Amino acid sequence: MTQPIEHVALGSGREFDLVRTLLRRWQGAAQGIGDDAAILDVPEQERLVSSTDVAVEGVHFVREWFTPAQVADRAVTAALSDLAAMAARPLGILVGLVLPARWGDALDLLADGIASAAGRAETHVIGGDLSAGAELTLAITVLGSARVPVTRSGARSGDHLYMTGRLGGPGEALRALTKGEAVSPWSWARFAAPVARLREAQWLASHGATAMIDISDGLSAELNHLAAASRASMAIEVEQVPVGNGIEALKAVASGEEYELLCAAPANLDTADFERRFEIPLTRIGRVTSQGSPGVLATLYGNRVDLAPGHDHFSR
Amino acid sequence: MTQPIEHVALGSGREFDLVRTLLRRWQGAAQGIGDDAAILDVPEQERLVSSTDVAVEGVHFVREWFTPAQVADRAVTAALSDLAAMAARPLGILVGLVLPARWGDALDLLADGIASAAGRAETHVIGGDLSAGAELTLAITVLGSARVPVTRSGARSGDHLYMTGRLGGPGEALRALTKGEAVSPWSWARFAAPVARLREAQWLASHGATAMIDISDGLSAELNHLAAASRASMAIEVEQVPVGNGIEALKAVASGEEYELLCAAPANLDTADFERRFEIPLTRIGRVTSQGSPGVLATLYGNRVDLAPGHDHFSR
Repeated sequence: MTQPIEHVALGSGREFDLVRTLLRRWQGAAQGIGDDAAILDVPEQERLVSSTDVAVEGVHFVREWFTPAQVADRAVTAALSDLAAMAARPLGILVGLVLPARWGDALDLLADGIASAAGRAETHVIGGDLSAGAELTLAITVLGSARVPVTRSGARSGDHLYMTGRLGGPGEALRALTKGEAVSPWSWARFAAPVARLREAQWLASHGATAMIDISDGLSAELNHLAAASRASMAIEVEQVPVGNGIEALKAVASGEEYELLCAAPANLDTADFERRFEIPLTRIGRVTSQGSPGVLATLYGNRVDLAPGHDHFSR
Repeated sequence: MTQPIEHVALGSGREFDLVRTLLRRWQGAAQGIGDDAAILDVPEQERLVSSTDVAVEGVHFVREWFTPAQVADRAVTAALSDLAAMAARPLGILVGLVLPARWGDALDLLADGIASAAGRAETHVIGGDLSAGAELTLAITVLGSARVPVTRSGARSGDHLYMTGRLGGPGEALRALTKGEAVSPWSWARFAAPVARLREAQWLASHGATAMIDISDGLSAELNHLAAASRASMAIEVEQVPVGNGIEALKAVASGEEYELLCAAPANLDTADFERRFEIPLTRIGRVTSQGSPGVLATLYGNRVDLAPGHDHFSR
């Protein structure tokens, strides 16, 4: 959008007072709020890409671990990461917020976190809904577009597998927090302040990525998703996976909420160019070996290893 | 969409088992599920219209009052009604579902309710997210499109105010349920099985509606929203408001979750044609008297009356 869109004047009532609180806090981070629905234009020749991501207190996060701004920033980042996984550019964000009374004082800070994640992605809040409820819940819908979205299902035999960044921080932070131990600053930053790899995804798509997924459930789980969707066999060399200092590779591949990207792409990607532009590594970690029978074969220095499954919020 | 889009093959895990349960139940009611995000095409020359609506157990509904299918159908209908209010046609639905363990057995029936509301609107579930949590929560995002969406802010001096259907059923049902009294079949149907007025909205838009809103918080509240957004004064004749048998007009104007449409439009709409087509009344209930100072003047047989405010889920 080239110029700010005015908000619609709102009527009276407690819910609208809360919306007004959000809008005051958001300033330019929100646009065109207040009608029954938001209006957007999808760029010509582009397809609409949309995703909803739900973050629930006590399931996806523990209140004591984060500031309210971090809670909200993480929820929005998790949703934006799904746009990155499709190589889509964000068009707008809809915020479904269930706000318990005990979180009422934190509304300004929750708004700040939503705004910071939106701002980093160069997008805006365009609408949403607010409800009372027992548990803080953020249901974040992201709308984006791409000329050719990159799906999970396009990996082909002969492609190589690449991933962005270094893994293991969030898993390490979660283990330490659960045991009451100290967390390294790097792991903490990776856990509390993740970033959606939106620009990195554009680079990967423009360099021929055939299939892509974001690492939200852990690399091992995402490899299985990619293999299942592409109906392909994949071989991964675990020792190639870049990890944080002192973190074991076999633990790092089960670390969730990473929001790094895993993709299949032609061999010989210019990883040095990627690293210069984005200041994070792009690493070849394996390849697509065949098509027809989906599966993942993992080795560590040539020896076959079983990877731990990723995490699942219904199984904890 | 002209032909069903295949779902992406899913990996393993409890969350994916639940998704598979939903997909089995939905059959053709869901399309293209399983990638990081859904892909849609907005028709050429049309604008994207989107809205998120949250329904929380204990806030928006009491479990004992409804079947699980009704709970889900109502939540999706409430969201679709926001597309109707913009005169948009649905393109797809994203379902954010927080499913407590005690609702696990009801997942099939919740899926049925989502499918029935989607089917009535001739649209599909295209994606979503599933989480554990303490309270059943449905965060429903609807995506639609329109060449010229009808907003709340276009009402002009001289326009007349029209509404679809008859009011008062949901309010009457809520009062009776709260007091443990019997509910009339008409009021119960209006409360438990509401319908989004999507086709009716197309008719109103094509007949010149200048501003439109759906009646989710009660007619009196929506009149105030419409007046505020259009910065216009409105006069309403309460005795003209069509109500269910035996329901007082002054109560009916505070009845929420009606999902009828209120619009401003030129005088002399062909209400008889509307009623023949849709088998519900279209009734002139007032007019836009001036612009500049927003407000609503209500009269009952010529005497000024104060309308009760609509309901607000934060104030109950």
